[in-house]
Amino acid sequence: MAEPFRIGLLGHGTVGAAFERLLADRAGQIAAITGMRPEVTGVLTRSRGDFAEILAGSDLIVELMGGIEPARGHVLRAMADGRHVVTANKQLLSRHGEELWAAAREHGVQLRFEAAVAGVVPVIRVLQESLAAAHVDRIHGIVNGTTNYILTRMAETGASYDDALVEAQRLGYAEADPTEDVNGADAAAKMAILARLAFDTPVHLDEVAYEGIEHITGDDMQYARDLGLGLKLIGTAERVDGGLSVRVHPAFLYAGHPLASVGGPYNAVTVESDAITEITMSGPGAGGPQTASAVLGDVVSAMIPPASTPETTDRLRLVQDVASSFYLYLEVADRPGVLAQVAQILGLQGASVKSVVQKGLGDNARLVMVVHPILESRLRAAVELIAGLDFVRARPRVIRVIEEEFG
Amino acid sequence: MAEPFRIGLLGHGTVGAAFERLLADRAGQIAAITGMRPEVTGVLTRSRGDFAEILAGSDLIVELMGGIEPARGHVLRAMADGRHVVTANKQLLSRHGEELWAAAREHGVQLRFEAAVAGVVPVIRVLQESLAAAHVDRIHGIVNGTTNYILTRMAETGASYDDALVEAQRLGYAEADPTEDVNGADAAAKMAILARLAFDTPVHLDEVAYEGIEHITGDDMQYARDLGLGLKLIGTAERVDGGLSVRVHPAFLYAGHPLASVGGPYNAVTVESDAITEITMSGPGAGGPQTASAVLGDVVSAMIPPASTPETTDRLRLVQDVASSFYLYLEVADRPGVLAQVAQILGLQGASVKSVVQKGLGDNARLVMVVHPILESRLRAAVELIAGLDFVRARPRVIRVIEEEFG
Repeated sequence: MAEPFRIGLLGHGTVGAAFERLLADRAGQIAAITGMRPEVTGVLTRSRGDFAEILAGSDLIVELMGGIEPARGHVLRAMADGRHVVTANKQLLSRHGEELWAAAREHGVQLRFEAAVAGVVPVIRVLQESLAAAHVDRIHGIVNGTTNYILTRMAETGASYDDALVEAQRLGYAEADPTEDVNGADAAAKMAILARLAFDTPVHLDEVAYEGIEHITGDDMQYARDLGLGLKLIGTAERVDGGLSVRVHPAFLYAGHPLASVGGPYNAVTVESDAITEITMSGPGAGGPQTASAVLGDVVSAMIPPASTPETTDRLRLVQDVASSFYLYLEVADRPGVLAQVAQILGLQGASVKSVVQKGLGDNARLVMVVHPILESRLRAAVELIAGLDFVRARPRVIRVIEEEFG
Repeated sequence: MAEPFRIGLLGHGTVGAAFERLLADRAGQIAAITGMRPEVTGVLTRSRGDFAEILAGSDLIVELMGGIEPARGHVLRAMADGRHVVTANKQLLSRHGEELWAAAREHGVQLRFEAAVAGVVPVIRVLQESLAAAHVDRIHGIVNGTTNYILTRMAETGASYDDALVEAQRLGYAEADPTEDVNGADAAAKMAILARLAFDTPVHLDEVAYEGIEHITGDDMQYARDLGLGLKLIGTAERVDGGLSVRVHPAFLYAGHPLASVGGPYNAVTVESDAITEITMSGPGAGGPQTASAVLGDVVSAMIPPASTPETTDRLRLVQDVASSFYLYLEVADRPGVLAQVAQILGLQGASVKSVVQKGLGDNARLVMVVHPILESRLRAAVELIAGLDFVRARPRVIRVIEEEFG
């Protein structure tokens, strides 16, 4: 029986509730890896719970209240009492980060905050660990999902800013009061945190200049489209003349830029440095389950020793025969009945043809087909039969097709 | 004076030499963060150095020899003697990973291997830490830079496989004997490691089915282009019917797939899971300095306590006025001399016009310009002057343009 690992949860809104559900769902797996079974042993909201009691009964505090007070006081008190803290509070960190990080160092505890910036995109961990000693030159980030959704819709559908905002609100990508998102303030808080980590310099939210997307028009989008540019709300932190510039503003990007293709409510961050060239990371920037996943990653990281590869607890059977969509390329004699015979063999093996292109080449023809998903073994059996037909001029070529659409 | 942190370096090829240079370059910064100054205190190559002596004089071992023996023996011995080990050896881990990870657990040391898979792309750390408790459904990866470079060139220039391979060799993206890269074996070793971490199941290289790109032709590429598809060498690890499939093969991808736009010698990995939706990470997949950066990230991570945010050691001046290229959008009266007057004001502030589009709209005209990089303060000064001209009908709009091309 794994011993319990007690988590005090401060805040129980969308992310807090999603975290509690996700933790319950993954507790067995975490116990298998760590030998400890995590459970929420206390919840503090405006209407229930007593912080001192919850703290006394916990091994780790998860702070998802948001805002400055009482979150700041609770986090400082928890660290002073020797608890690791996991928080998603970008406002708190972008205003009081130095105080909180100093307290964590003083008390020898971990203060983790992956969920504060860019949802599941693991940019905090990568900057703090993988790139701890790197000489970063620049960070560009799309760190607000609401504005990226609005700009994506404006670009794709020609919608006005107002219509795209209403749609974002309807789908839950924008809040009833979207001010902090659309005016760039939310992204500015996140860039302050990223800049602090990447450039080893204290950066307060008040030092980040920002502009929002409220004034972007359909004409701007049209211009971007005509020139093959993307228009995004970009956060930038970069070395300039021996100093540091941290700012947020709309910007046109060339189509080849790694951030230009980041669509919908996604976030993405590109870190540039001479030695690494660049790393780009992307994923959902918000959403209850996604943010809760980032919180859970931090909680589990606080439970396991660093760089440990636990013994495997599962032993999935290794499957060799997998269904896929396939592309077939045949060179055949150009005569009647060829396509029918090929299609019949495919059909007998259960392969259903999605598209065919046939092109004559003198006496021969090239037949390119895509078939709907089928077990590889059956497709290969069909291809062997087809390869043996007298009108087939060369070994058929087979390439898989990954069918999912993204974005 | 920071105390020394002694590193024994096994192997001194391209990556080993790049690591030694990078470490020397970053040692001061690492000392500021960690209080310890890292230095290479012993180097083992085929012709110099004694392993036992190097081990005795080191706090951590970096293994960059490659191959199975003597690397395996050295790594096991180092861990048994209580040393953390950092390695980039994918062959070793994909064949003997379970033995090595068990030894690390037994001796309570860290075995880090970020550089073994996908160069600077931090996929090992993210799988082991951020996603330690996640229920991963699938991983798709472009984990071989040589083949991605060849396929990118074939797609972009219509080059044949043979010509693209020769070009890759000339540029150092392919080795003199490219067999392991182009036949998929290298990617298979990396996918075995990723699958082990993501699916908590032992996976040996021999269990990974793979195909290479040697048989891909210009016709296949043409077909892909015609249909808006990308053709990539894709490593896949996914749950199938309660089991696990791990494989490497060429595959067509729709243009919207996050991996479709990964070009040149870059690597990228997409991790899918219900709770996180998906995370995509990309960056250079090989190269001496890049791989050395991944090794250095592991070394520094072994030196600092987990989730620590060290005190800032720098205090860069925050710069508010930054040069950028700008887009200007003006609504003006449609009469002679307007463009000349606008251009003159811009010129006096030092703004050089890169492109102009003017469109008549009845009595008015719309003037859209892009200016070459200029300090924001000077551009804003010009815009204020322009806004005051009697023929300007609305407040000018200003949006930054990020000029770099990527990929």
